[in-house]
Amino acid sequence: MQLEGCSLIGAGKAPHRGKGASALEPATGTVLKPEYCWASHEDVEAAVQLAESAFEKFGALPPARRAEFLKAIAQGIESNAAVIVERAHQETALPQARLTGEIGRTCGQLRLFASLIEEGSWLDARIDHADPARTPVPKPDVRSMLVPVGPVAVFSSSNFPLAFSVAGGDTASALAAGCPVIVKPHQGHLGTSELVGRIIQQAVKTTGMPEGVFSLLYGPGRDVGMALVKHPAIKAVGFTGSRAGGRALMDAAAARPDPIPVYAEMGSINPVFLLPAALAERAEAIATGFHASVTLGVGQFCTNPGLVVTPAGADTERFLAALTLLLAATPAGAMLTASICEEYRAGIERFAGVPGVKQVAKVTVEQNSAGHFAGAALFRTTGANFLAHPHLMDEVFGPSSLIVEVASEAEALQVAQALEGQLTATIHATEAELGTHHALVEALAIRAGRLLVNGFPTGVEVCHAMHHGGPYPATSEGRTTSVGSRAIERFVRPLCLQNFPQSALPDALKEGNPLKIMRLVDGQLTRE
Amino acid sequence: MQLEGCSLIGAGKAPHRGKGASALEPATGTVLKPEYCWASHEDVEAAVQLAESAFEKFGALPPARRAEFLKAIAQGIESNAAVIVERAHQETALPQARLTGEIGRTCGQLRLFASLIEEGSWLDARIDHADPARTPVPKPDVRSMLVPVGPVAVFSSSNFPLAFSVAGGDTASALAAGCPVIVKPHQGHLGTSELVGRIIQQAVKTTGMPEGVFSLLYGPGRDVGMALVKHPAIKAVGFTGSRAGGRALMDAAAARPDPIPVYAEMGSINPVFLLPAALAERAEAIATGFHASVTLGVGQFCTNPGLVVTPAGADTERFLAALTLLLAATPAGAMLTASICEEYRAGIERFAGVPGVKQVAKVTVEQNSAGHFAGAALFRTTGANFLAHPHLMDEVFGPSSLIVEVASEAEALQVAQALEGQLTATIHATEAELGTHHALVEALAIRAGRLLVNGFPTGVEVCHAMHHGGPYPATSEGRTTSVGSRAIERFVRPLCLQNFPQSALPDALKEGNPLKIMRLVDGQLTRE
Repeated sequence: MQLEGCSLIGAGKAPHRGKGASALEPATGTVLKPEYCWASHEDVEAAVQLAESAFEKFGALPPARRAEFLKAIAQGIESNAAVIVERAHQETALPQARLTGEIGRTCGQLRLFASLIEEGSWLDARIDHADPARTPVPKPDVRSMLVPVGPVAVFSSSNFPLAFSVAGGDTASALAAGCPVIVKPHQGHLGTSELVGRIIQQAVKTTGMPEGVFSLLYGPGRDVGMALVKHPAIKAVGFTGSRAGGRALMDAAAARPDPIPVYAEMGSINPVFLLPAALAERAEAIATGFHASVTLGVGQFCTNPGLVVTPAGADTERFLAALTLLLAATPAGAMLTASICEEYRAGIERFAGVPGVKQVAKVTVEQNSAGHFAGAALFRTTGANFLAHPHLMDEVFGPSSLIVEVASEAEALQVAQALEGQLTATIHATEAELGTHHALVEALAIRAGRLLVNGFPTGVEVCHAMHHGGPYPATSEGRTTSVGSRAIERFVRPLCLQNFPQSALPDALKEGNPLKIMRLVDGQLTRE
Repeated sequence: MQLEGCSLIGAGKAPHRGKGASALEPATGTVLKPEYCWASHEDVEAAVQLAESAFEKFGALPPARRAEFLKAIAQGIESNAAVIVERAHQETALPQARLTGEIGRTCGQLRLFASLIEEGSWLDARIDHADPARTPVPKPDVRSMLVPVGPVAVFSSSNFPLAFSVAGGDTASALAAGCPVIVKPHQGHLGTSELVGRIIQQAVKTTGMPEGVFSLLYGPGRDVGMALVKHPAIKAVGFTGSRAGGRALMDAAAARPDPIPVYAEMGSINPVFLLPAALAERAEAIATGFHASVTLGVGQFCTNPGLVVTPAGADTERFLAALTLLLAATPAGAMLTASICEEYRAGIERFAGVPGVKQVAKVTVEQNSAGHFAGAALFRTTGANFLAHPHLMDEVFGPSSLIVEVASEAEALQVAQALEGQLTATIHATEAELGTHHALVEALAIRAGRLLVNGFPTGVEVCHAMHHGGPYPATSEGRTTSVGSRAIERFVRPLCLQNFPQSALPDALKEGNPLKIMRLVDGQLTRE
């Protein structure tokens, strides 16, 4: 595939008007070809109109057809894996092995949603039969199922150029639901986005999907992105990125004449609580696991553990000694973009300047002619000092973490209760400790979307039971997830059909259950 | 029960400070005792703090305990039905038979949610087992289920003093989910609200619920109501009322430092489309059903059919002749409050003043010493004129409807495509016509939460398959319902537990499935 630098609109492409930007190689600062051209307002309008006109046909396709489309995208990505990985490596400095893994994850997600809609029970089909003899009024025949909401705008992330990007989780779940998707790609991987976008464009064609179910619009978020969020035909938004960016979209969507939901995943500090007996047993092992988690991908994960709450004392010193040794031996890594590296440097300088916060590990942050490199930063402070400085709860995107030594279990609980909404919270504890720390577990459960025991938060498993979505500000709302099969729920709504004749019902709601899906019939879950 | 006119805060009551209002008998204008005192900001704070401190314990109770609580409320309402109906009749002028029916509906809702949580499958429990041998990384054990979001504020409606009020659907579904509830009752039925509130207060005590799971705060929406919506401890809002009121709450909730969802049901005009063959077959029968629906409860239903789209011609004249006769024989009825009656009068005057709109039926709107009475209003216009005057799509709350005569099927479709979000849309059609009017059905399906064939939208069945929630502006978001068992989904979020030992898992997620609920285990729905 020859990259062209144009937005993709339905089956075609936008004209190259010149105004735009080029991708940069973060490891070297080298400019990569081609130059990318920003979408115009006419391009936005054209893409949205195509999406709107494709919606009815796309949403009404048999699920097997949409599943075929998702699988064709996965197949296309796999067939072009080498070229995608090469370009993504150039644009993001992420290691090729990691990107190869991300190809697998992306295709796995597409196939997970394909299998979900092929199986069909996710439709939450419900039937309450009529009872004409009921008094005082006859009972009507009432049936309902989930239907797609309409065209969806997806803002892709910087840190997952594949799995949370053009064909990532938001796109896969929205397409699976039956919603056309318009992606605004992240500027950190322009070429990777075009490669994947053209694979989707091709899959639309080969599987006979209506034109307009997918478009890709390059441009700045405050311009092209905002035009999408404010467009009356857009019915929902998926976003992965910063809190400021996500909140701006939330506010714009809430101010529309007809507000629409924004599903924004904005990251968090993912606190890790160490309980005394577990720490005594496994201080060094916890340090090893923690080191791997905090430095993974140069710390550029929304689930990066940015806070460790641990009892002051000898076992914490063991933990810190082991961790410091490991960090000292970890080379600096190239960050995704210059601005991410700059913000990381500013973040660790801000932390280092807070009274009572001590910097434990030496940090390298270098932006030289060879690129934007960052090493891990480790800080320590007391529980009392942490509670006195709420800005220590701010996320520093990158391989940075703050060790908070608490004087008592009560203080650990206070720290937990002071936390904002989190994607995850982790507890290292013996089984006995878990049983005696209900208050801590409950305080974390209220504040997080996912609780882990004796593990680390990075590495979000893509599966049915996953929930990747915590209370605000971790996400725009904790009721939905951006990872796992529940993600499809963001892009659907129930539709109720009353007194419809059999011939006019969709298969999911017909007597005899032709799709053989699980349904709630007169209050009973059944495949009959 | 002796009415006292005070807000109920946990197990106690707010002091009577004097500033407030009294209930009025709408049929006569008579002032009813006692005087009701508005809650102070200290009262709001006290109620919210109690709710917050009750939340953890309440949410963690075995579902059977919360079910017992809901059933005790239903039992208490039934035991006091006579006194509730008497007071509600005085305050709302709704007929006693209707109110007795509403008692049944309210208790039915409470028991529906009790049975839902006793059965337990609504928890959407999911388990994906670990696979330590998986490469390149071991697969963790991941489980998730729905958990309550926290304290909920409920704004009760004017037109259902029981079923959408203090112990109505919002309260029942939030309590079932495990969320403490603070109700701001509607000022149209202050005493009825106190009666029901005190029954709930008593049920909290007899079933041993933590104090604070329920409070009732009297006061104006812009004051007490806004204080609730903006309070950091309130995590969701339920509302039934006007579009202006609902939007004000939505905007306030979206502007919070941590935005929360507002589930506002704001009504709609519930279009009814008549297709030619059905109309030819049953013009008079449709008129009879339509008349009953549009005049039911003096038209004071969010599902009142305010628009009829019908082919111009002889069959429509038959329909109108029959309808006009029936309307002429229908006496004016007392409306719920003086201001609702005043707005109804203003609404029909506005319609009557639109060029090209003809008033068909004579209307009585009288506010005399005996009260606030209104008769039904019927208008007719052409499709072209309707499309030229978008304000004819505004809801007139009361027994008013607009007949739009369309010149062609294409014009009927244009009218459908011009509509805003609706709670319901209805089609009267033969089975053959349904099969040939896909475009119309699809246009309505995109715009409505519930589609009816050959029925009428009033009388919302409380059942599992019901969906009472259409796209904005019918509701704040079409993804959720305020009627039927899906309503519980508004007040929960998934919580994911990773690598938890069996002893620390809730019963819903334990191996062996002690609750015997339907779960998604490794992708398979099963009760094993």
